[in-house]
Amino acid sequence: MTEAASRPTLEAVAARAGVSRATVSRVVNGGEGVREPLVERVRQAVEELGYVPNQAARSLVTRRHDAVAVVIAEPEDRVFADPFFARQLRGISKELTAHDNQLVLLLTEGRDDHARVARYLAGGHVDGALVFSLHLDDPLPGLIRHAGVPTVFGGRPGWSDGAGRAAYVDSDNRGGARAAVRHLADLGRTRIAHITGPLDQTSAADRLDGYRDVVGHAEPLLVVESDFTPGGGERAMRALLDRVPGLDAVFAANDLTAAGALRVLRERGRRVPDDVAVIGFDDMLPLAEQTDPPLTTVRQDIEEMGRLMARMLLHRPGPGAPGGDGAEADAAAGVVLPTTLIRRASA
Amino acid sequence: MTEAASRPTLEAVAARAGVSRATVSRVVNGGEGVREPLVERVRQAVEELGYVPNQAARSLVTRRHDAVAVVIAEPEDRVFADPFFARQLRGISKELTAHDNQLVLLLTEGRDDHARVARYLAGGHVDGALVFSLHLDDPLPGLIRHAGVPTVFGGRPGWSDGAGRAAYVDSDNRGGARAAVRHLADLGRTRIAHITGPLDQTSAADRLDGYRDVVGHAEPLLVVESDFTPGGGERAMRALLDRVPGLDAVFAANDLTAAGALRVLRERGRRVPDDVAVIGFDDMLPLAEQTDPPLTTVRQDIEEMGRLMARMLLHRPGPGAPGGDGAEADAAAGVVLPTTLIRRASA
Repeated sequence: MTEAASRPTLEAVAARAGVSRATVSRVVNGGEGVREPLVERVRQAVEELGYVPNQAARSLVTRRHDAVAVVIAEPEDRVFADPFFARQLRGISKELTAHDNQLVLLLTEGRDDHARVARYLAGGHVDGALVFSLHLDDPLPGLIRHAGVPTVFGGRPGWSDGAGRAAYVDSDNRGGARAAVRHLADLGRTRIAHITGPLDQTSAADRLDGYRDVVGHAEPLLVVESDFTPGGGERAMRALLDRVPGLDAVFAANDLTAAGALRVLRERGRRVPDDVAVIGFDDMLPLAEQTDPPLTTVRQDIEEMGRLMARMLLHRPGPGAPGGDGAEADAAAGVVLPTTLIRRASA
Repeated sequence: MTEAASRPTLEAVAARAGVSRATVSRVVNGGEGVREPLVERVRQAVEELGYVPNQAARSLVTRRHDAVAVVIAEPEDRVFADPFFARQLRGISKELTAHDNQLVLLLTEGRDDHARVARYLAGGHVDGALVFSLHLDDPLPGLIRHAGVPTVFGGRPGWSDGAGRAAYVDSDNRGGARAAVRHLADLGRTRIAHITGPLDQTSAADRLDGYRDVVGHAEPLLVVESDFTPGGGERAMRALLDRVPGLDAVFAANDLTAAGALRVLRERGRRVPDDVAVIGFDDMLPLAEQTDPPLTTVRQDIEEMGRLMARMLLHRPGPGAPGGDGAEADAAAGVVLPTTLIRRASA
């Protein structure tokens, strides 16, 4: 066990350099107000002893950690099961690394742990937080606001109070859904079903709105709520076929769900796209190219969303910068990336 | 953008409670030496204002963060591509959550970022670190020792100096490999190939030793170094078949590699197990049950390894505890978990 006992202290550096503790502390934190020969002596002692400044103390002065927390508001097993999160983290990781900032991923077993996450965020260990996959009734956004950590959200936050002030990056979920369902209608399909995501997430609610923009509210039997997982897609597809055996198209709220739906359609002997046309959302590769048949889907640039979230956080104006208060907050509020319909064989 | 400006200060709490800053600070850090009525007034003011103590300042006093870093010495895209890491993290996450400790996963783009990881570890943000997937020439262990953070390694560390003092959890890699290759020999196979993992990792080197314990060093053409990935397994299997077309068994250093090897064997028209028997390592589910044919493999309890690493770190004797210095370090050094051969159809 490597123990802290062997770590050289500030006192040891002071003794070696023949200066006071306060002088060492000032040098370690930037050296302002210390004469050059003393700075040199302290630096040499630091080097000789292999002293590592205690950053908890140091950050009290500098208020910088060069570290950014990422919080995915899902249990850790979902984080690793859904490639969406890996993709978004890839964009975040590349951007943070380019700025020599450490990516600090805070994993949880579930919502019960969110208070602990907020404590860590409030604890002065990171310069800001990137938070995604929020659900509507999650206390996390409130806890984060309380913690006072600069935050950028992935996906438009769903709360109403002060939502105008929250910085976020989103995709045009409603427009993308509308394009998908319009394509199905243009193919002459008249009974178009929709397998939704969890409707306590704005991404899923917005995709449902886009679906309704085209088909209206006429046939509630054609809409089934699901959970963005392949297993959920299978269950939803079975329920839809039991209710409306004559359906001729399905718009699934993401590609994982669409893959589950395709399996059930094959199992039930429906040909895709001849009997039932299917469209997904995400363009998650390689999955969307490997389904049988390959999946027509709405592409969103997930990695770019992650990159942009990191960029917005790193380049935010400081509290003292011009326009760094209320005015800037509204300007920076939301960035919405476009989506594209990608045609493959399934529709 | 949620900015720190709105965060209530220690001064505000002191003013509201009608006490000094020092009194508020003492109460927030445990309340010792403060009379009960004052403690009550401060607590009430903290609650009314929604004050969150600055943990950077607080941890200078308490020296506890209730947070543990996990470092996987691989680029973040490998972390998400290999289910081994998700499995180990699951065990770690469950154990840390049970002790209300925050799991802080430090992701990197590669080895160039390890100095930054070490800075974060040294910075007083966590109580300890769990480090796995180390490669031999990685500077990380040295940097971590310098940082003075209590550390438990996943897998036996490969460096020689002071390795006896490092705490680690490992599987019986050599014994498991020996059992696998002995099983192939018992089936009457005489040309048994081995696809290794990266030989700068002790897990891979130990499995090669186990293979050699049974077959000796006679046929170097039958050993190909690979990288624990499915694509690497495909390349290695092609190379082996080109070199030794008559081989009749393969021991792959993990299940991902074995899955790649199975694909190439099918592609080249070899029947498994009739022409070539195949054994993997890990018992990674569902993969090992879903290969064609299902995979005979050496099971190691990856989740339990993660759980045990977390437990060793959380329950380590403090520097002041009895035997908390040199003596304890040797006692705690290494825990090696047993492995089991799981027979399915491939051998």
